[in-house]
Amino acid sequence: MMREKLSVSVIGATGIVGQNYIKLLRNHPWFQVTDVAASSRSEGKSYAEAVRNKWQMSVNIPENIKNLIVREAHDIDSIDPQIKFVFSAINLPSKEDVKELELNYARKGIPVISNNSAHRWTPDVPMIIPEINPEHINVIPIQQKNRGFSKGFVAVKPNCSIQSYMAPIYSLQKAGYKVDKMIVSTLQAVSGAGYPGVSSLDMIDNIVPFIGGEEEKSEMEPLKILGTVGEKGIINDDSIKISSTCTRVPVTDGHTACVNIKFQEKIPSKDEIIDIWRSFRAIPQELSLPYAPEQPIIYLENENRPQPKKDRDNDKGMAVTVGRLRKDQVFDYKFVALSHNTIRGAAGGAILNAELLLKKGFI
Amino acid sequence: MMREKLSVSVIGATGIVGQNYIKLLRNHPWFQVTDVAASSRSEGKSYAEAVRNKWQMSVNIPENIKNLIVREAHDIDSIDPQIKFVFSAINLPSKEDVKELELNYARKGIPVISNNSAHRWTPDVPMIIPEINPEHINVIPIQQKNRGFSKGFVAVKPNCSIQSYMAPIYSLQKAGYKVDKMIVSTLQAVSGAGYPGVSSLDMIDNIVPFIGGEEEKSEMEPLKILGTVGEKGIINDDSIKISSTCTRVPVTDGHTACVNIKFQEKIPSKDEIIDIWRSFRAIPQELSLPYAPEQPIIYLENENRPQPKKDRDNDKGMAVTVGRLRKDQVFDYKFVALSHNTIRGAAGGAILNAELLLKKGFI
Amino acid sequence: MMREKLSVSVIGATGIVGQNYIKLLRNHPWFQVTDVAASSRSEGKSYAEAVRNKWQMSVNIPENIKNLIVREAHDIDSIDPQIKFVFSAINLPSKEDVKELELNYARKGIPVISNNSAHRWTPDVPMIIPEINPEHINVIPIQQKNRGFSKGFVAVKPNCSIQSYMAPIYSLQKAGYKVDKMIVSTLQAVSGAGYPGVSSLDMIDNIVPFIGGEEEKSEMEPLKILGTVGEKGIINDDSIKISSTCTRVPVTDGHTACVNIKFQEKIPSKDEIIDIWRSFRAIPQELSLPYAPEQPIIYLENENRPQPKKDRDNDKGMAVTVGRLRKDQVFDYKFVALSHNTIRGAAGGAILNAELLLKKGFI
Amino acid sequence: MMREKLSVSVIGATGIVGQNYIKLLRNHPWFQVTDVAASSRSEGKSYAEAVRNKWQMSVNIPENIKNLIVREAHDIDSIDPQIKFVFSAINLPSKEDVKELELNYARKGIPVISNNSAHRWTPDVPMIIPEINPEHINVIPIQQKNRGFSKGFVAVKPNCSIQSYMAPIYSLQKAGYKVDKMIVSTLQAVSGAGYPGVSSLDMIDNIVPFIGGEEEKSEMEPLKILGTVGEKGIINDDSIKISSTCTRVPVTDGHTACVNIKFQEKIPSKDEIIDIWRSFRAIPQELSLPYAPEQPIIYLENENRPQPKKDRDNDKGMAVTVGRLRKDQVFDYKFVALSHNTIRGAAGGAILNAELLLKKGFI
Repeated sequence: MMREKLSVSVIGATGIVGQNYIKLLRNHPWFQVTDVAASSRSEGKSYAEAVRNKWQMSVNIPENIKNLIVREAHDIDSIDPQIKFVFSAINLPSKEDVKELELNYARKGIPVISNNSAHRWTPDVPMIIPEINPEHINVIPIQQKNRGFSKGFVAVKPNCSIQSYMAPIYSLQKAGYKVDKMIVSTLQAVSGAGYPGVSSLDMIDNIVPFIGGEEEKSEMEPLKILGTVGEKGIINDDSIKISSTCTRVPVTDGHTACVNIKFQEKIPSKDEIIDIWRSFRAIPQELSLPYAPEQPIIYLENENRPQPKKDRDNDKGMAVTVGRLRKDQVFDYKFVALSHNTIRGAAGGAILNAELLLKKGFI
Repeated sequence: MMREKLSVSVIGATGIVGQNYIKLLRNHPWFQVTDVAASSRSEGKSYAEAVRNKWQMSVNIPENIKNLIVREAHDIDSIDPQIKFVFSAINLPSKEDVKELELNYARKGIPVISNNSAHRWTPDVPMIIPEINPEHINVIPIQQKNRGFSKGFVAVKPNCSIQSYMAPIYSLQKAGYKVDKMIVSTLQAVSGAGYPGVSSLDMIDNIVPFIGGEEEKSEMEPLKILGTVGEKGIINDDSIKISSTCTRVPVTDGHTACVNIKFQEKIPSKDEIIDIWRSFRAIPQELSLPYAPEQPIIYLENENRPQPKKDRDNDKGMAVTVGRLRKDQVFDYKFVALSHNTIRGAAGGAILNAELLLKKGFI
Repeated sequence: MMREKLSVSVIGATGIVGQNYIKLLRNHPWFQVTDVAASSRSEGKSYAEAVRNKWQMSVNIPENIKNLIVREAHDIDSIDPQIKFVFSAINLPSKEDVKELELNYARKGIPVISNNSAHRWTPDVPMIIPEINPEHINVIPIQQKNRGFSKGFVAVKPNCSIQSYMAPIYSLQKAGYKVDKMIVSTLQAVSGAGYPGVSSLDMIDNIVPFIGGEEEKSEMEPLKILGTVGEKGIINDDSIKISSTCTRVPVTDGHTACVNIKFQEKIPSKDEIIDIWRSFRAIPQELSLPYAPEQPIIYLENENRPQPKKDRDNDKGMAVTVGRLRKDQVFDYKFVALSHNTIRGAAGGAILNAELLLKKGFI
Repeated sequence: MMREKLSVSVIGATGIVGQNYIKLLRNHPWFQVTDVAASSRSEGKSYAEAVRNKWQMSVNIPENIKNLIVREAHDIDSIDPQIKFVFSAINLPSKEDVKELELNYARKGIPVISNNSAHRWTPDVPMIIPEINPEHINVIPIQQKNRGFSKGFVAVKPNCSIQSYMAPIYSLQKAGYKVDKMIVSTLQAVSGAGYPGVSSLDMIDNIVPFIGGEEEKSEMEPLKILGTVGEKGIINDDSIKISSTCTRVPVTDGHTACVNIKFQEKIPSKDEIIDIWRSFRAIPQELSLPYAPEQPIIYLENENRPQPKKDRDNDKGMAVTVGRLRKDQVFDYKFVALSHNTIRGAAGGAILNAELLLKKGFI
């Protein structure tokens, strides 16, 4: 489709989300990483040297990345002018600093697609799952106008913990079955905490029933995602009530969610639900975006699925896998859902956002 | 208190629950295991030989048990007449066979205290958690009359998966705060499935979101436990509605439950709940039963507790540990609860039942 | 290269090695699985039904395999005459029965390439690692003559536990540095024991320092592999002495070996050794066999490598990864080596054998 | 035996070794912790507050420790004069700083018993395993004279990785069977690295075949331990040659070692070795020191033992458990040995040292 690949930068490239970008983009048909940035500790080193004992991916560092010299992420002036946009996997002690840094790239004319949670509640910043709220990109002109940006902007993706059930819920809502209430318990993988992240002493023969800030994100972010574009920014949809308990379990990758749902009025049959899920397609599929899963929601009949080890990699880690749909004697239905937290829930989800933004002319 | 210890038998003594009885009873002040029974495969072997490579306990086989010759469990006639009662940890392919076997011991005049689920729904068999429904032992005379037993009877304990939240829920009900609805997701330890039980291939870097029959037990058994003694047997209390999702996680011992609750009318404050839990005492504590925990419900303030590895052994594995009580925007409150599945949830719970029955004159 | 793919059968297709064959052969350029066989328990069922809850692979069952009807492995008469050869992943209680079954296929004119250990010590059956002793296939005509077979024969691959260090050792010997003594300790993955195999109770927070029969195999099989083709069969080379300790660790796939070696006379420098390893190429590479790794031995400089999770999949699981080569103050050198036990050490290794045998005209 | 317990201090009390001291000393018959010290970060806080989310022990913080106010470890002047000696679990970036800090306590007249490796190679500091080289305490007067100390001194214990095989080896040497060479591979628990220590991403479905500095310690420390007291300090015994490979495995506690040994001349029979091990007793047993295991070396016949989960706690974590003794076709014998790394290998071993020093009049 394209003559030449677009040059992109990964900032926060040495952390685990950054490494995932490097891995996932190594054969991307449209994008090529030609710039990596991190903290001053890595500045001036080759990428291979900077991540030396921290490289966690199951593939080797791509040859064309190994020798890229790491830029200090705040040093925007020295960025190669060929860079078309930035994937932000940056992590700073202060969220305010992240906000400012990302806005500075945007101000410089460089679009930023971010994993960081800093801008998720900035009203004129879209928080996108491309199968659910692709139209939220229309808040970008508002953002640019608000802030006097020319072609730069900031767009973000939501938290990894909600990815496994958002598409299943949204597809039901779209089919006319409005969800009223949800109670969710998640069993989350350790890669979500970065590297070194969770201590092995906490994860051998143990679970930890708490992840700082995660439940709040899980309960709030869906409201923005399901919202609409207003004049000044996104207007939340608070018609759905969510309660979430988030736990950490000894799993490398793949967040599992046990979900109980109650509908507002109309209640679909079990077969209808499975049919809605299996036939769900959206903009990324219609546009045949390279990172889009063919089938965003896979439903498995086996009663002991989905399982992280067996299902997280479905459709290159971008599909959500669902199982165990059954009647619930307290609410209406319950089911178990799974998604790959560092692919669909982080780098892969952001790449899909970038593909959407490119196709829609924002990049 | 006692001159001499009572002789007791463990049937199904070679399995993992049976091993736990052997371990927990090794220094019991009232009971002494002098008879062990298992399947015909072990018949005639010394206990040490019979469990050889299957012994899973962290303590060695007690010296006075090692050389006991294993009896075939169906061979009731050859049981030592000194045996005062039987702990049943038996597991047979057919639940009907378990029922019959346990009734045969009772018919012979030998009380049976069982871990097996076979008789849990027999109306004239009490299913007891001594802190909650000790008065259910009053169904035993009905059972004996119904079946023409003299001093034998069958009493059972409920499933391990509900133990972590039953005492917390019951203590609130007893304090006047009736619970209307509960949604529970459990993260259950592998020892609950016996040995060899769950394959390591399913538990390394994985969770399995299904345990056969477990959710049904979790949703039904509380109704009997919270019921009352009627003329013909236990009458269930179905005023509380429970929905349960049970998952298996890579933890040796200790079932964790994420619980959301909605009260019927009156809603206690957070401080009241914690106070009710911490001050909860019941018959086993009043009678100072040897296996009773001093404090049945321990509430921890630390936001990342309870954890299986750190909290399962609280008060010799008999206390329930609770944490993370917080407001729930869908129901009223949510919390996390933990109990040791092979101690409180199996052998230890049954020992406490035996102590209660002895003190109350049924043994 | 080929017009049409050859039809092949997998016997023992429902076990974990069998599943690996199904997975690895799903896109093979030369071979296509068109027949699956197992025990009578699975006979007559579709493959999907037969493996239902036992399917352990990270990819789904290939569509063209799902509906194959499982044949009983002993029912050789009803095998499709189009089948060109058989991959044996069969496991029977008696090794003698395995021997006979495999010979019966051969007698029928169907070559058998086996993972089972039954025929490893049959003198006229070659035990092949294609990079090391490809010339051992020349014992096949002897086997056929001995036994009156026309085109059928049995060929086997060695145990998974030795695969990580055999190529490193052989490449040094080939370069003129004869190894005199080796002391090896292995840390072996649970998939080596099949499914369900090792209990999770033995693998959570634990290691088991024993694998039945494994040390004997590890110490003996290299002698045959390094041997020569004599008139009546393979003549062992017992010039190298090996001592092995085999342990089981909580790892899904990938056997790690800690190896200490002492040379007979000439001792290479560290740089020479690394150079020999990195430049080692053999027949499978020369013939560009589809399953051959480009570089059979990968040496990593990082001091904390190889690691199972990061290195087992190198070059589609067929490369051996080595690291930590350093001077040994007791012997001459020590190093750590890793190979994927169910790919290079089982199904993948056998597929490479089949490719060699086809290219050399034995199939 | 004693009227009153001695007051002792734990410096580095908030780390994992420090926590182990607090746990193990909570019911000690001779010693009572009345002072805790750590870095300036914890200074002035209560102990409970200082370790808040880092407390890793399976027992709760003892009530009499919770409210001790943490002293800054360098602030020696404000130490309570009642303190009789110090357990050092301190960890500083520079080993030189540790050396100086520990010497400063000694100079002040306070004996220091340390887990830190800083002084292990100081010739006039004894490195003691009480069952092996108790007479090395006689280097203390030399140390005091060298440095002008009155009653203060520094004594250390060796690395945790060698504890499992040092007693087995020493007992053989003492019985007249001199060991010439040893090749060892260890599988070490994560608690050896402190908290947070090893990342869970490195320990789920993985092993790491490297522990910085560990192999060097393993190969060198035995030479000092087996040495003799000379005029100026300990004189090493370098008659034994050791080669070690140290790996990290997903186990909480308990280091396992696979050991191959070659004797100098006389070779005992297998039965003799087992008999030597089982009957081995030493000074701590003769003096009935409270922390001494009754039987320092336990030999198990079961072919799949020792295992960390089942054997690490033998005799309160102070016994070494050995198994799998068998002929070695390269050396003379091989076996597997296990010891609890944070009890025998750290805090427990140091407590036993303190008990010895007290009994011998050095404290």
